[in-house]
Amino acid sequence: MSTQRGRLLGLGVGPGDPELITLKALRLLQSAPVVAYFVAKGKRGNAFGIIEHHLTAAQERLPLVYPVTTETLAPPLDYETLIAGFYDDVAQALAAHLDAGRDVAVICEGDPFFYGSYMYLHDRLAGHYEAEVVPGVCSMLGGAAVLGVPLVYRNQSLSVLSGVLPEDELTRRLADAEAAVIMKLGRNFDKVRRVLTNLGLADRALYVERATMANQRIVPLAEVDPMASPYFSLLVVPGEKWRG
Amino acid sequence: MSTQRGRLLGLGVGPGDPELITLKALRLLQSAPVVAYFVAKGKRGNAFGIIEHHLTAAQERLPLVYPVTTETLAPPLDYETLIAGFYDDVAQALAAHLDAGRDVAVICEGDPFFYGSYMYLHDRLAGHYEAEVVPGVCSMLGGAAVLGVPLVYRNQSLSVLSGVLPEDELTRRLADAEAAVIMKLGRNFDKVRRVLTNLGLADRALYVERATMANQRIVPLAEVDPMASPYFSLLVVPGEKWRG
Repeated sequence: MSTQRGRLLGLGVGPGDPELITLKALRLLQSAPVVAYFVAKGKRGNAFGIIEHHLTAAQERLPLVYPVTTETLAPPLDYETLIAGFYDDVAQALAAHLDAGRDVAVICEGDPFFYGSYMYLHDRLAGHYEAEVVPGVCSMLGGAAVLGVPLVYRNQSLSVLSGVLPEDELTRRLADAEAAVIMKLGRNFDKVRRVLTNLGLADRALYVERATMANQRIVPLAEVDPMASPYFSLLVVPGEKWRG
Repeated sequence: MSTQRGRLLGLGVGPGDPELITLKALRLLQSAPVVAYFVAKGKRGNAFGIIEHHLTAAQERLPLVYPVTTETLAPPLDYETLIAGFYDDVAQALAAHLDAGRDVAVICEGDPFFYGSYMYLHDRLAGHYEAEVVPGVCSMLGGAAVLGVPLVYRNQSLSVLSGVLPEDELTRRLADAEAAVIMKLGRNFDKVRRVLTNLGLADRALYVERATMANQRIVPLAEVDPMASPYFSLLVVPGEKWRG
């Protein structure tokens, strides 16, 4: 007796405002018997908060709780080994649902393929099961919209950088950028602001925390408290305006 | 007697699949008495096609027809002057509606602030009228989704480049990129493929035409006809896979 296998659905649910989910992600979300989402230990999960009100009691919630909250661990603990093992375990848990014929929706803040954990499940499972990825509005676009600034004019290049980068690489890449977005600030904020200041870009840079979420904050760069910048903050250095 | 002024709405409607519009863009679209959209002479307009079925007869359609279809013009014609005059005229036409108290929705393929004409209206009008920008799923994310490849792993940088760039700059920026998306191919395709080949990146590059649209085509790089590559095609050079 053969069961038809379930489908893996990677659903981008947008940057935070629940209205920024697409019709397609919503339709597939509501069709899925199992709804999985990544979440830090003890947290409710941003992505889950965005879509929770769309779920029915019949849909199974499957929180995927990260085993660690930082990439810096004291030996003998090793982040890469721990997290790879975690993704292996999660993939196995999802595979059990898929084998039983149940579609599994993995909900992803922003977009599934633009920085996010879904890709590690996709890489493990998409070769074995039917997978569909629904793109979503990523935080960078949500940030530009609420800041009211175009990212790039005409044929300008856009550099998307992680605040985690070492100071010299961040400096080199920003110096060469026509327009830039810097993500993953949090504890990297102070370093990033120093680099922007050294490059004379501080006046052009715009900062937003939790863009499009209910608790969004837009703060002038000079006034940001580097100890309080959340991970979900970003900086935009818009391209030089072209009159058009 | 004072009339309350209308609002300018820049609505991202996604990369092509009509289901990739957000709930918010759809709500504001349906609330707007005037719906404006850019379109090439003699064309119906991609963005308009995405949302047309949501409109009622009572909503005014306002096509904004580009005066030129290419940036390369024979003297004495000058693209920059012509297009700036066009945006001035369009801004004036929209201002008349806004002054009369009518909200104007400008519908934008992809995202309003990520390469697109809306930004030139925003720059002209947002200082004088209330403006709201609704971010949308951009073509780059639609492309990655249908190609089934994550754009960037962990802290990799992403370079978004225009195919219009001169060959030496394209080469320099691609050589330094950890992951890249190249947009605006069309007549630039042959040059871009040559650069990718010279850099040894041809095997990693993935090509898609009209991602998420009904007539989407995914073609191996070597098989693309450079004379037939449409403007709405893009190349993705995904970041090197990290096992996670």
